[in-house]
This record gives sequence, C-alpha cells and structure tokens, in this order.
Amino acid sequence: MVLKENHLKKLEAENRRLLKWEHQLSLILKFGQKISTTLKTGNLLQLIADKTRELLRAERCTLFLMDKEKKLLWSKVAHRMGGKRLEVAIDKGLAGYVATTGKVVNVRDAYADFRFNPEVDEKTNFRTKSVLCLPMKNYQGEIIGVFQVLNKKGGSFTRHDQDLLQIFSSQAAGAIENSQLYENLKESFDSFVWTLAATIDARDPMTAGHSQRVTEYSLTIAKQLGIGGEKLELLKYASILHDLGKIGVREAVLTNPERLSEQEYKHIQTHAALTRKILERANFQGYLEEIPQVAGSHHERVDGKGYPEKLKGEDILYLSRIMAIADVFDAITSKRHYRDAMPIRKALSLIKKDSGTHFDPVCVEGFMKTPLNKLIKIIKCNAEDYFKEEDLKLLSNYTTGQFLRILKKGNSSLTAEQRKTVTRFNYYYSR
Amino acid sequence: MVLKENHLKKLEAENRRLLKWEHQLSLILKFGQKISTTLKTGNLLQLIADKTRELLRAERCTLFLMDKEKKLLWSKVAHRMGGKRLEVAIDKGLAGYVATTGKVVNVRDAYADFRFNPEVDEKTNFRTKSVLCLPMKNYQGEIIGVFQVLNKKGGSFTRHDQDLLQIFSSQAAGAIENSQLYENLKESFDSFVWTLAATIDARDPMTAGHSQRVTEYSLTIAKQLGIGGEKLELLKYASILHDLGKIGVREAVLTNPERLSEQEYKHIQTHAALTRKILERANFQGYLEEIPQVAGSHHERVDGKGYPEKLKGEDILYLSRIMAIADVFDAITSKRHYRDAMPIRKALSLIKKDSGTHFDPVCVEGFMKTPLNKLIKIIKCNAEDYFKEEDLKLLSNYTTGQFLRILKKGNSSLTAEQRKTVTRFNYYYSR
Repeated sequence: MVLKENHLKKLEAENRRLLKWEHQLSLILKFGQKISTTLKTGNLLQLIADKTRELLRAERCTLFLMDKEKKLLWSKVAHRMGGKRLEVAIDKGLAGYVATTGKVVNVRDAYADFRFNPEVDEKTNFRTKSVLCLPMKNYQGEIIGVFQVLNKKGGSFTRHDQDLLQIFSSQAAGAIENSQLYENLKESFDSFVWTLAATIDARDPMTAGHSQRVTEYSLTIAKQLGIGGEKLELLKYASILHDLGKIGVREAVLTNPERLSEQEYKHIQTHAALTRKILERANFQGYLEEIPQVAGSHHERVDGKGYPEKLKGEDILYLSRIMAIADVFDAITSKRHYRDAMPIRKALSLIKKDSGTHFDPVCVEGFMKTPLNKLIKIIKCNAEDYFKEEDLKLLSNYTTGQFLRILKKGNSSLTAEQRKTVTRFNYYYSR
Repeated sequence: MVLKENHLKKLEAENRRLLKWEHQLSLILKFGQKISTTLKTGNLLQLIADKTRELLRAERCTLFLMDKEKKLLWSKVAHRMGGKRLEVAIDKGLAGYVATTGKVVNVRDAYADFRFNPEVDEKTNFRTKSVLCLPMKNYQGEIIGVFQVLNKKGGSFTRHDQDLLQIFSSQAAGAIENSQLYENLKESFDSFVWTLAATIDARDPMTAGHSQRVTEYSLTIAKQLGIGGEKLELLKYASILHDLGKIGVREAVLTNPERLSEQEYKHIQTHAALTRKILERANFQGYLEEIPQVAGSHHERVDGKGYPEKLKGEDILYLSRIMAIADVFDAITSKRHYRDAMPIRKALSLIKKDSGTHFDPVCVEGFMKTPLNKLIKIIKCNAEDYFKEEDLKLLSNYTTGQFLRILKKGNSSLTAEQRKTVTRFNYYYSR
C-alpha cells in the first residue's frame, strides 16, 4: 500500500515536471517562430535577449556576438541601457571567460567570483547578483556569441534553466547567422550601387553627388507623402540608379562647357531610356522588380511633354513623379558648365509654378511640406556648419512651402531675430 | 481503492502521453535548428519534406509553395520523383483545396475523396492511401504553401499528427520566407553585376561578352585547382567586375581602330587601378571583402612586370593569378580592331610559353587540365552547334594540355575518326 502511495506521488511529481517542461518547450518553439520574422541582426539581438529574460524569468539579458578579428564581444542592446552598441574585450569578465573557454558559468553571487567585471554595473547603476553565462554555438559547433543572463527572479539559475537556454540558444544561433549573411549581402549590394552611381556622376565633375542628392530629396518627399517600407526601398534604388544610362552618353557631350546644340541635347536625352533598358536586363526580384520602370521615367511630365515615352498623369508611376521633382530641384540648384546655380527662392518658385504641368501637384505638396532643416542637410553637405544650433532648430519649424511664402510676403509673426535667420538661409542658398 | 487504482492508471497514461509529446517537441526543435543552416529555398523544401516524413512516419511528403501571381503551387522535390520542379494548378486536387480554403484535410482513403487528383500517382507509379494536407502560414497568418503528407506507416494520420505538423509548419514558414528574401536579393545583386559588366564591355562592340567569358574561364580553371565554396563565389564577382575601371577610359581610345600609341596604351592601362579604386569605395562584406584586390590585380605578372603595382609571384593574390590567364586567353582568341583572333593552337602555346614569366605555373597547369568540351562552351557561344554529340563526347576525354600535345606531336593512339574530330576542332578555332 505504502509502495503504491509512493509510486503515485512519484508519478504526480513526474507529471508536473513534464507539464512544466512541455510548457517551456512550447514557449521556445513560439519564440523560435517569432525570431524568424526579422533578418536585421540588431533587432534580432534585442528580440532574443527579451525572450530569454521571459523564458528564464531574469532581470536582464545581453546577447553578445563574437568578432574574432577585432577580439571583442559586441551587442546592440543591454536592457535598461538604452540600446546603444556595447563592446567588451574578448578576454574580460565572465562573458569573456565563456567566449574563450566555451564553458558555461552559473554563479549565485557575481561579486564573489574573481572573473566578474563590475564596470558595467557601475556605469549603469545596476547590481548584479546571480549570473548564467552560456556560449552560443552554431550548427557546426563554433562559438559565435555569449548569452549573459542576470538576476534570476526569486533565486539563482538552476541546471534546468541552463538546459532551457541551451535549447533556445541553438534556435537563436541559426537565426543570427542567417541575419548576418543577409545583412552582409545587403550592405554589399547597397554600397556597390551607391559607388557605381557616384562613379557615373563623376564622369562630369559638375554632376558629382547628383544621384545621392536626388535620392535623398526623393526619400524625403516620399516620407512626407506617407510612403514607407518596401516602396521606400524601391524608390531608393531607383533614384540612386536613375542616371545609369549616362554610361552610354559620350563624355564630350556630358562635359560640354557650352550650351548644348539640339543634336547634343537629343543625345543626352537618350540616357533615360537607356537607364531603363540596362536595368531591365537585370533580373530584379521581389519588391525590387519595378526598379527599371521607376528609374527610367524620371524625365516624364504629367502633361505628357516629357520623355522617353511622353506618358501622362497617372500613367507615370507615382514614385517616378516624386523623383521628377527631386531631379529637377537638384539640377537647378547646382552649378552647370553653362550656367550658375539658381537661388533657392527662384528654384522653389519654379517647382511650384510647374505643378500640374511638369510635376504632379500631390508630389509638389509633399515637397513643400519638407522641413527646412532636412533640405539643408541635402542641398549642400557642409551647410550645417554655416548655421548655429538654434538656427537649425528654428528652420526645422518651417516647411519648404512656408519658407517660400515668408520670402514672398514676409511674415509678421516672426521676431526680428527669426527673420534674420530666414534671410540668412535665403542668402546662403542664393550665392 | 478502485478510485485510486483508476487515478493511477490515468496518471500513467498521461505520463506516457507527455513523454511522447516531449520527445516529439524535442525532435521539432532539432529539426528547426537543422533547417536554419541553409538559405537556399530548393534545399530547404527538400529538407523540410524529409523531416516531416520522419516526424509523422509517412511514406512521402511534398511541401508546395504558393505562387499567387501565376496561380500555381510549385515544389522543387517530391520523394522518389528525382527532385525536379513540380507544378500544380492552385485549384486542383487536395493541395489546391487546402491552398484556396486554408482548411486542413485529413483523409483515410484518397481515392474515396472527390477532390483527390490521381494524376501524380499515375505518373510516378505510386499508390496514395492516407493523406494529411495542411496549409503553411507565415507569422502574419497568410498561406504561403501547403504540406502534403502521404501514407502514414501502419494506419492513417491522427489529430495528434495534425498538431505536430502544425507546430513544425510554423517553424518551417519562417525559414522559407527568409530563404526567399535572401535568394531574391542574391539574384538581384548577381544579375545587376552581370548586366553592368556587359554594359561596360559593350561600349566597344569588339569586347562585348568579354567579362562573361573571362568569368567562365576563371571559374573553370579554379575548379580544376580544387577551389570551391565562397572562394569560388569571390572569384566570380571579381572576374565579372575586373574591367569596371573601363568606365573611366575615353571611348575614343577604347574603340580606336589603329594600334594604340604609347600614350593611349598608358591611358587604357589605368583601368586596372581604377577598377580597384572604384570597388574599394564600396563596402563589400564577409567573403566578398576581397573583391577590389582580386579584381584590380588581373594585369599583374608573376615576374613583376605587370601593372598597376608590379607585384611579384605570391604577392599577387592566387585568384588574380588565375584571372590573369583567363583574361589573356580571351583577349587573344577574340578579334580586336587592329588584329584578328589568334588560332587556338597558337593561343594555347602562348599561355604555356609564358608560364613562369607572365603566369603562375600552377595556374597554367590548372588551365591545361580543363576538358576541351568545357572550353568549347565558353569560347564561342554557338560552337556547340558545329559539333556532333559524339564529337563533344570525344573532346570531353581530352584536356586542353593533351589537345595541345596532340596538335604538336600527333597522337598515334587516336583513331583516324578521332584525329578528324580533333583537327576539326583546331580548324574551327583557327578561322
């Protein structure tokens, strides 16, 4: 009878253990699903650290990644530390010990352990008590990072916690490695595209930086119009590459110091169609598929008088209509071989005047909503030096459109001081 | 007493259930870790299907992905079907029903179900009995594919099988979506790089196709030398982009129909350093980091008489030493404005003669080991049409080096017929 009683108790205990275990494995599976929703390493580090805290009921968690070349551990986030980048030498503290030895460290009282480095505690006004530090290994068994979990709520970390983290760590490692592969490729692609555009611009020193500025204007206008996500990324690439077709324009025409002859002008105009043709030969996938059309239509006009296809109104892609403004605005506010840069007041007036003929009125409105300080950042790289902190702050209160109205009609609500700043801004961009 | 007895039995049953469940959840976690080791959608489809069969103890599993635009379900693999691409209309069969309704189908006898499409069974000589068909949903709840699991070993699929597959499906969906994002970006990057190189080559019609052929020669030689994986990928990009610097060479010099003056030749030579300079401005990551150095050194010579840096021997990157042969071989076997293409025998002799001065002897050996049929595929795109099936088969038995020896010394072991083919090959490339 007693035996049976004991057996029953054992079974009940085992059942409770298994139920808890089942719950925790299900939680890890749920977390695993969640962490596969991002390929951004920074976000992933934060997400995994959050889920680890939840799983182990701990106060703080940092997931460090190993940079073997620079011999350091880095992380994008530490809880309650504001999410900035954190770096530790690869041989320092408990995390360093785990990174170099591959061993797990589980201590009740960090301050009693000689390997513990109290620096971070001091900096962040935190008191570390218990610590669970575990190496994150990839599928091949290489250490790629370190979990550092601090202060188990209501006690210290158990062997069971260690097992749980081990399982979660395996899931996390794959996600981290994939995100790094993706980000490496993305950065390679992005930087190559930027570099290439800059190289083509630089065939004529007068147009150096043009594609970059057009991209920044385009993105600023698009954001004012509520565009985000993949559409914004598409616009970015299409803008960077909008003048790719200039690869096929003869350098003699590109850098002609005189006003262009009609024939030369026709030759230069071929660049838009060529941009599209070259880009169409590539096989852009997913949300990048429309790069050729968006990039190739930046010289279309809503009144149908543009080129290469003389498209009208909404037959021109929305993103191309945005880019048209960006392209013209940069061209007229920049110096050319045969003319000076246009003063900003005149340039803004011209964009406004051509709303409905050259430009889509909705896009012009978006442009006119751009805060002045954003314009400054783009228009000339070193313009920020020319303005004092408080100038920039003031200018950020006015949109491009308001600025134009103030210049035209004056604005009695401005103080004398403010009027001076606005005038200085106008003057700066009229030289 | 009886109550207790019942309680005990219940507990034991519950215990068995939980243990089995724990085992299966652990299995799913293990599988989840495994599927995060590849970002290739094709491999992933195969892997997930394999693991599903294992998990549910089924005879066959196909994981279909949904192509909403083309209104079809496709898969790269079906077990025992040799792994080719499989397509089904989105509204056909059980899988189609699941894809369009989002419902789970679990049937004991497929042939008794009016929705079942027996076509695949007929084609593959298979007899479907039980079927479990379940939609694969992403984190946002959209259907992105369909699991089709066939013939549960020893019975039909249970509700428990359904639950297990549901959990595994959630893990799989994230992996699939990430692999598609990665592959989309990779294809966009690759095709853009190819397109760009082709565009730069085409500034001079005489060099059209040059970068592509150099890349194919480089990769062929590298494979003979045992190079694979990321090194091979690096060589691919560096080869495609090796003449990027020609962007900065004046078209008048590029297309000069006369022999170049010394000054013009100096100007053309700047392209190698410019290739490196432009590529260095990009921020290539991971295994792509060395693209600028590899690409920029393709005119170095092992004797130190090359350019731009007059590097010697092993100071030149191994991959650049391979590319040097590929570049020269394509240049001399192609027509130029001021000279004809060199006959193949002469071209091969020249490469061999310059081993140790211009070229690295090890790389020349790799080149000489290239099977002739591979050379044919690269040297002229339509050359294959010129040769009969059995010609190509014969040529595949000879390496480039053996071919050169036969041409020089004759080879008595060749039959008259074989000799004719080799002579024809030589003749074809000497016109």
